[in-house]
Amino acid sequence: MTPRFKLFNDPVHGFVSVPKGLVLSLVETPEFQRLRRIRQLGLGFLVFPSAVHTRFEHGLGAMALMQDVLNTLQGKGTVMTTDEVEGALAAALLHDVGHGPFSHTLESNLIPRGASGRPFHHEAMSRAILARLDRLFGGALGVAAEIFDGTYVRPFFHGLLASQLDMDRLDYLRRDSFYTGVAEGVVGVERILKTMRVHGTGPNARVVIEAKGGYAVENALLSRRLMYWQVYLHKTVLAADRVLRGAFERARERWGSGDPALEATAPSLAPFIAGAFTADDFDDPENAPGAALDAFCELDDTDLLASMKRWRQSEDPVLADLSRRFLDRDLFRTTFLPTSPSEDQREAWLDAAADWLVAEGLADRASARDDARYYVGVHASRHDAYRTERDSICILERDGTVRELSVASDTGAVDAIATPVVKPYVVAPKALDLRSVLG
Amino acid sequence: MTPRFKLFNDPVHGFVSVPKGLVLSLVETPEFQRLRRIRQLGLGFLVFPSAVHTRFEHGLGAMALMQDVLNTLQGKGTVMTTDEVEGALAAALLHDVGHGPFSHTLESNLIPRGASGRPFHHEAMSRAILARLDRLFGGALGVAAEIFDGTYVRPFFHGLLASQLDMDRLDYLRRDSFYTGVAEGVVGVERILKTMRVHGTGPNARVVIEAKGGYAVENALLSRRLMYWQVYLHKTVLAADRVLRGAFERARERWGSGDPALEATAPSLAPFIAGAFTADDFDDPENAPGAALDAFCELDDTDLLASMKRWRQSEDPVLADLSRRFLDRDLFRTTFLPTSPSEDQREAWLDAAADWLVAEGLADRASARDDARYYVGVHASRHDAYRTERDSICILERDGTVRELSVASDTGAVDAIATPVVKPYVVAPKALDLRSVLG
Amino acid sequence: MTPRFKLFNDPVHGFVSVPKGLVLSLVETPEFQRLRRIRQLGLGFLVFPSAVHTRFEHGLGAMALMQDVLNTLQGKGTVMTTDEVEGALAAALLHDVGHGPFSHTLESNLIPRGASGRPFHHEAMSRAILARLDRLFGGALGVAAEIFDGTYVRPFFHGLLASQLDMDRLDYLRRDSFYTGVAEGVVGVERILKTMRVHGTGPNARVVIEAKGGYAVENALLSRRLMYWQVYLHKTVLAADRVLRGAFERARERWGSGDPALEATAPSLAPFIAGAFTADDFDDPENAPGAALDAFCELDDTDLLASMKRWRQSEDPVLADLSRRFLDRDLFRTTFLPTSPSEDQREAWLDAAADWLVAEGLADRASARDDARYYVGVHASRHDAYRTERDSICILERDGTVRELSVASDTGAVDAIATPVVKPYVVAPKALDLRSVLG
Amino acid sequence: MTPRFKLFNDPVHGFVSVPKGLVLSLVETPEFQRLRRIRQLGLGFLVFPSAVHTRFEHGLGAMALMQDVLNTLQGKGTVMTTDEVEGALAAALLHDVGHGPFSHTLESNLIPRGASGRPFHHEAMSRAILARLDRLFGGALGVAAEIFDGTYVRPFFHGLLASQLDMDRLDYLRRDSFYTGVAEGVVGVERILKTMRVHGTGPNARVVIEAKGGYAVENALLSRRLMYWQVYLHKTVLAADRVLRGAFERARERWGSGDPALEATAPSLAPFIAGAFTADDFDDPENAPGAALDAFCELDDTDLLASMKRWRQSEDPVLADLSRRFLDRDLFRTTFLPTSPSEDQREAWLDAAADWLVAEGLADRASARDDARYYVGVHASRHDAYRTERDSICILERDGTVRELSVASDTGAVDAIATPVVKPYVVAPKALDLRSVLG
Repeated sequence: MTPRFKLFNDPVHGFVSVPKGLVLSLVETPEFQRLRRIRQLGLGFLVFPSAVHTRFEHGLGAMALMQDVLNTLQGKGTVMTTDEVEGALAAALLHDVGHGPFSHTLESNLIPRGASGRPFHHEAMSRAILARLDRLFGGALGVAAEIFDGTYVRPFFHGLLASQLDMDRLDYLRRDSFYTGVAEGVVGVERILKTMRVHGTGPNARVVIEAKGGYAVENALLSRRLMYWQVYLHKTVLAADRVLRGAFERARERWGSGDPALEATAPSLAPFIAGAFTADDFDDPENAPGAALDAFCELDDTDLLASMKRWRQSEDPVLADLSRRFLDRDLFRTTFLPTSPSEDQREAWLDAAADWLVAEGLADRASARDDARYYVGVHASRHDAYRTERDSICILERDGTVRELSVASDTGAVDAIATPVVKPYVVAPKALDLRSVLG
Repeated sequence: MTPRFKLFNDPVHGFVSVPKGLVLSLVETPEFQRLRRIRQLGLGFLVFPSAVHTRFEHGLGAMALMQDVLNTLQGKGTVMTTDEVEGALAAALLHDVGHGPFSHTLESNLIPRGASGRPFHHEAMSRAILARLDRLFGGALGVAAEIFDGTYVRPFFHGLLASQLDMDRLDYLRRDSFYTGVAEGVVGVERILKTMRVHGTGPNARVVIEAKGGYAVENALLSRRLMYWQVYLHKTVLAADRVLRGAFERARERWGSGDPALEATAPSLAPFIAGAFTADDFDDPENAPGAALDAFCELDDTDLLASMKRWRQSEDPVLADLSRRFLDRDLFRTTFLPTSPSEDQREAWLDAAADWLVAEGLADRASARDDARYYVGVHASRHDAYRTERDSICILERDGTVRELSVASDTGAVDAIATPVVKPYVVAPKALDLRSVLG
Repeated sequence: MTPRFKLFNDPVHGFVSVPKGLVLSLVETPEFQRLRRIRQLGLGFLVFPSAVHTRFEHGLGAMALMQDVLNTLQGKGTVMTTDEVEGALAAALLHDVGHGPFSHTLESNLIPRGASGRPFHHEAMSRAILARLDRLFGGALGVAAEIFDGTYVRPFFHGLLASQLDMDRLDYLRRDSFYTGVAEGVVGVERILKTMRVHGTGPNARVVIEAKGGYAVENALLSRRLMYWQVYLHKTVLAADRVLRGAFERARERWGSGDPALEATAPSLAPFIAGAFTADDFDDPENAPGAALDAFCELDDTDLLASMKRWRQSEDPVLADLSRRFLDRDLFRTTFLPTSPSEDQREAWLDAAADWLVAEGLADRASARDDARYYVGVHASRHDAYRTERDSICILERDGTVRELSVASDTGAVDAIATPVVKPYVVAPKALDLRSVLG
Repeated sequence: MTPRFKLFNDPVHGFVSVPKGLVLSLVETPEFQRLRRIRQLGLGFLVFPSAVHTRFEHGLGAMALMQDVLNTLQGKGTVMTTDEVEGALAAALLHDVGHGPFSHTLESNLIPRGASGRPFHHEAMSRAILARLDRLFGGALGVAAEIFDGTYVRPFFHGLLASQLDMDRLDYLRRDSFYTGVAEGVVGVERILKTMRVHGTGPNARVVIEAKGGYAVENALLSRRLMYWQVYLHKTVLAADRVLRGAFERARERWGSGDPALEATAPSLAPFIAGAFTADDFDDPENAPGAALDAFCELDDTDLLASMKRWRQSEDPVLADLSRRFLDRDLFRTTFLPTSPSEDQREAWLDAAADWLVAEGLADRASARDDARYYVGVHASRHDAYRTERDSICILERDGTVRELSVASDTGAVDAIATPVVKPYVVAPKALDLRSVLG
């Protein structure tokens, strides 16, 4: 008898056992293999050199955790059908299959808003690819799609996939902590999974955490918050982000100008620079245009990197400079601000940047004020560590009652982090001294 | 040339390098070797079977972290003399040398309050042993003693030894997390040490944390809180604690009764059962009675365990029962209470316990109400995760200002945990159903 | 529905899930709880301070690996009954329940040879305790006993318990590597388990390793060899061993002399000093004398340690000196020898030791030559890294053939380590310079 | 005072401290930043998904180990100048700066042999880039270059950089084990470094291993052997290698054919397809042509991946098929052979492959026999685990003598692995059943 699993080595979870049949077939599709070329942490590797891990490992990892939690729940008496198990595993595997180059970094640029004004979100792409694979596999992904959409008759499956304590988050926190070397981001994944159980019946059944898992869950929320500020929203990551998006926007602006460097843009990337698709194309992911999917599935990190290597020889000094900065890691500086800067302040900074661009020979006087937009970015980073009001985490107390986490906790720590934190910041070249510029 | 260090294997920090000379000589004293027989986590091993690590490893570990942080501080320009370095290492090594059997468990029992009414604290014993070793080494521990006492002219050395973020805490959090397998207790020790620096000059110089270390410090406080509730104050640890202390108290009560089991008490333990020394003997640790030190340095975990093996054959059914329960891990149950129980409630529980003791044949009717004290314990566990008011942690902001941690933090999480948490609980045999007893 | 498992934290394997019912009941017996007081590595903690882990964790760990491998084998089509699974888990849990103080250290001393001349082995004690527990649990351990004895009708279960690649070895290698911090002892336990399968049918069915696991198995053998020479047979461990066994032997020699220190020997230890039981009592472990079992189950590391604390005040200077040396870690020195020393050499060393004892005031001239036996020990350490001839490891090649490991391997490395290595050595006080003594 | 180091997070070694000044400046050069885009394990990530780590981390890691070992050696009395320390760190950092796309995979293809017939080796490129950086930094890399070349007056520095136990190997073994999750590849790096010392004086001074490190060194050699067969020369890695090199060779063959897919080759890659440089250009790395260096420093993994995405739409079915296979991981199968196949056997396989290509529509009859070369590859993998004769590892015995490792070892295990192992194999599409083809 042949083993029923193919084993993948994973330094985070040990061996990952992929069930032969549908799930392994999904791993072997070009759509999923593409994720090997998408860095999980976007530009995080520019600060944490080891964090070059990809969405491929994360997809396998989320599936592995789904296996573990389903085993735990079944062990506590929750009966599941083979279709449900397979559907949940497939959904976990594919939940991020729609990510583009550098994951979140270019999400809002690659596919701009259409006439409707609604933004694109990678989940719509994941959903559209899932629909395509469902057609390819003769409808085998029906349950997976319903679990993904949250329409499946037993909603707790969706909760395991997409909630404040889902297999996605538990895998990425553990994995990103591992690869960055940020030890304090470690989450007690195994403990949390072991203390999950299904509470209630029928459509009201939901996943709750047994009381003894409460501290581990609190810790996971606090670790996630730490990972956001220490890693995902690290100052230098924000700066790199700005440089990459600046280059992308500049390339789009200059598209069609006949610049040979732009013409050497990787063909897979070209339609996205040109803005060939809009978010409106994904309003109905089940029926997204085939051409959009084809193009997207051709695209990965390498197209951006290969193109920027061309662009650094661009006739346009701004595009050349931004591309060189990105490739050689000569990034901007991020300065956090106590409050959002005034319009006057922004204008003063742009003026200063324009002067600096002229002095550096990166722009002529006529265009400098306009080009300055690429060199001074004012943004705000924001993180919700926990939301109490919606989709909250529930604790099953020893007396059988169920309470929302912040109520069950013995301190205000959960409450304290339930307030979103917003930090305004400005990004600009290090050589440009913004502190001396009056608003 | 002979290497200047002796290496000790340590799975937590890798190799620990003990400098030859004074520090290695201290490791080799019987006083320090005794720590090999004192479990670091007291009774924690009854819940976390692997947590049998000892104060010996912790002493070495605290010294190793002291080495690391002194290197970091010197690398940032803080000049130190050889005597200061050696003194700080010696003080870190010896800071817990005065712990008795099972560390904190019996601290208040072994050496009762004297006429003054002041309680004994293990730090007084550490200090007394340090003084004895200082005499033995011809005064070589003078700086170590001043650092220990907080009287050394550069107070930041004391801060590294005894504060809310000292080498003691950083080692025990990391170590206890490692041995218990409670992954979420992991603390970013290396990051915290690397972001420490000395700020200010002369006697005002103190250790601060650079801003980039702020999240790691917050995480350490939150992990410590988690370790308290999940490990140190675990329900079953509290229950085991009650059983052990009950046996000790009962043995003291019955001391001199002629019970052969009691006469077989380990000779090292006997004077402490007899109450030969009181806390008043340590009012001046430099001059604590030699007999008290001699006796204490003979005592370790093995005396308790060996004695309880005798006591379980005691003529006294209570002592026999408590000893058996401890050795075979047939422990009491801990129930947390919403509020501290009323006097009436306590009396009702004691009445119920008395009836149960009679029914079980553990007491006769005459003594049962009195013996019930050993079977129903009402206590409260308490944890201060952080104190803002005194000895607070300071953050060096990027603009050069120094702010207290809870002020520097971007959320109320630090504030939230700065309120001490107190949880009343009652401990009693599992067979005794306290919930049905009206108060 | 209540979960079917009780979880134990284990930093080595993560959570260990103990099935409720028979297996959990076995964990809760005093016989198994006693293992919490038996150090797994004997005196290894005197070299590797962190290696204070116990037979309790090892028993749980071996059971956990047995669970894993049974799952793997079932997943590859080997059908098992509930009784077989439970029996195999129970046998793995209890396989070392018969270990005495400091595991192997005193094995040959505690229970001397009887009239038959056959030596005692801890496995006979494990077997006797298993029989006792079987009676206690009404015959529920029948299959476990047969698996333990190797008489069960499907012999591969015994192979998983006791062979050159069994769950015992895999757990202790992984665990001892973890606790000593000897990273290079790490074994790919998970990989080896995942590549095991049952080959053949009926009574010929045996466990083999699939070809892809071959390197991991070779590595395990080589790691085991490294652990023997680097840890188990470390020079200082051999020296500590000699000191402890010397103290035990001396105490036995002086037993009945009226020495108050000896009279204060821990009562649990006394019958073993007195030689109350012999190996012949365990010729038929099923029917070992109840008194022997009762006495043995009272005994653990603490009795030795507590007794030696008394003995160091003995009237006998040799017993006092050996005990002090052990407790304060003032151990002998081990010197490896190119060949086994001649009788003349040994005599010359003993003469030198006798002179030294007199000079040190540890013996008078009359007894010195006789006492010298405790101060000069000539022994040989021996390790078989792998045996090709008996109970060999088999590899299932990709073409379906089965070959013995050393044949399947592509180099002579396995062959090379299949020759037992024997290293003669002499142990003596550091102050006694043996090198200058002519033979 | 500003800290003297910039810290980099590294999950393998913890924090890596890069000294400010020359070494940090080298890290910041485009030449070194390029290594962020070169996978350390070449195509290993196609078998071990997590093994996407890069030469950038490895360069930092080798430098970090060099720091550690220099500290150890200085601690044992070996005096070094500041220039020597800086030179050794710089040389360790840059030792692999000349690696091309996917590290070793394309080494022999990118830069073909010139008229002289000598092959290219990446070390020549590292050396040429080092010379370029030396010019850029005004001669600051003189000592580094001599250490690299082995001409420095104290040869032991070269030994730390390039020998059978150098910082390069110790870092890559530890790192590759970490990222692949192959736990049994773990090497006791810290132990080995701590037992190194300089033995002898003047130009005869060399690095030896103290006797107590002997087992750790043996283990490192055995782990390296395991990593070769289990990871570096894994069957599927060999197959992927063949597919990638086939695509490269085919592209070179078809270069200039006007195929639009080929014309879309990444411009950085184009000159290497065209064979613009030969190994002869690097006979004198100090004076390698600037154009060759410029071109090489533009090249990384992304160019190959981006180009293959184009090539899979090639007019040439062979190039298109090989490119698709690589990107979608539809790889060939590797079959190890007992002996090197005969010429007749090879011909028979090529005939079979030709038939299969025609049947699949990948070639027409006229070209099929020629195209078959891309589908049937006969090779041999070879690994020298240890060489006793040249550049051997020396052990400093406790008696002060120095012996070569295989002599010092107590078994034949080192000898056994000192014989190179050669394994012939054939690589071909899975659909092509070679076993049925008679030779």
